Amino acid sequence: MLTLYFAPHTISLATHIVLEEVGADYTTVRIDFGTTQQRSPDYLKINPKGRMPALVTDRGILTETPAMLVYVAQSFPKAGLAPIDDPFVFAQIQSFNSYLCSHLHVAHAHRMRGYRWVDADDRHSIAAMQRKVPQSVSEAFAMIEREMLQGPWVMGERYTICDPYLFTLAQWLETDGVDPKRIPKVMDHRRRMSERATVKKAIAQEFA
Amino acid sequence: MLTLYFAPHTISLATHIVLEEVGADYTTVRIDFGTTQQRSPDYLKINPKGRMPALVTDRGILTETPAMLVYVAQSFPKAGLAPIDDPFVFAQIQSFNSYLCSHLHVAHAHRMRGYRWVDADDRHSIAAMQRKVPQSVSEAFAMIEREMLQGPWVMGERYTICDPYLFTLAQWLETDGVDPKRIPKVMDHRRRMSERATVKKAIAQEFA
Repeated sequence: MLTLYFAPHTISLATHIVLEEVGADYTTVRIDFGTTQQRSPDYLKINPKGRMPALVTDRGILTETPAMLVYVAQSFPKAGLAPIDDPFVFAQIQSFNSYLCSHLHVAHAHRMRGYRWVDADDRHSIAAMQRKVPQSVSEAFAMIEREMLQGPWVMGERYTICDPYLFTLAQWLETDGVDPKRIPKVMDHRRRMSERATVKKAIAQEFA
Repeated sequence: MLTLYFAPHTISLATHIVLEEVGADYTTVRIDFGTTQQRSPDYLKINPKGRMPALVTDRGILTETPAMLVYVAQSFPKAGLAPIDDPFVFAQIQSFNSYLCSHLHVAHAHRMRGYRWVDADDRHSIAAMQRKVPQSVSEAFAMIEREMLQGPWVMGERYTICDPYLFTLAQWLETDGVDPKRIPKVMDHRRRMSERATVKKAIAQEFA
């Protein structure tokens, strides 16, 4: 049995969708981001980093989305969401997911989490970071559009763990100030993702 | 045959060390960061993101350190640097490497790459980011010291791809304003890493 600690409007949705895709037997625990429950002593016992999400397994607790996605895919090999036996294609999947976690998600986070990188009461710098987000996030999505998204899925004909991860970050692109007309492949990918029953179910659970 | 595009003083050292550890047949191409050669048209053909490093393989080009580390480990299984057949331990390795790329390395980058997240001519915000680096990088190393580094190696008794990656980021901790006395396990790890013949050889090649 797996337990996903999640919060709506966070990157936890990516792992949530993959749990649905593989048909895992899992439960969820909702953490209230609004009251910063993710920094509560109880949750810090689950994830000392105080971040979302966390996945409780029979062998221990896992954090960090790229790791959790591979873990779920590898635990349910029949779903075929990550070709771990092909080192090069698997590396391409890992490379894409690394770009999302270390570049796109980080650029996005400067809109609401600027206090991680400057003093929280430095209004000038916090605002300066927010003003840069439309450019930095747009450039990251343009790179994905031009160089990475093979189509119809991220890795081409094969649907993989990259797809729910990209979809989750693409939820926020309008709010980040990205012009959807400049990234038609990303927008088409998002639309097709949103029509999948697994995606609908995960979203419905998060916002129930 | 593998070819590593690298630059001294960058994260490329992590992959470089792992290539040595596995005994790979590889060559290197040095990119001059000082003249921003990483943004040259020739290098952008190798890595459109204009970042270090890139690994040219017989099947194509790979980027992003977490992906390259797993690829090299998986291509040379006898070296045993990543237990890919154990989904939970492999996920722990991936989780650690994700934390390095998306959190520790990002915190560090605010010291010299602030222009990614605010306008380059906004001196106030660039300086504000630099002032925060000692705190943000120290907190990340404290988290590694307290919660992640099992000892003697990152994953315990087994030396893995996590070790060269941590070692490479630990090269910069004094310049980032971290107090070494607060992270004795990290410092002991760095010292033992620096004594390995493979590490000495990779460093000697980068600075030759």
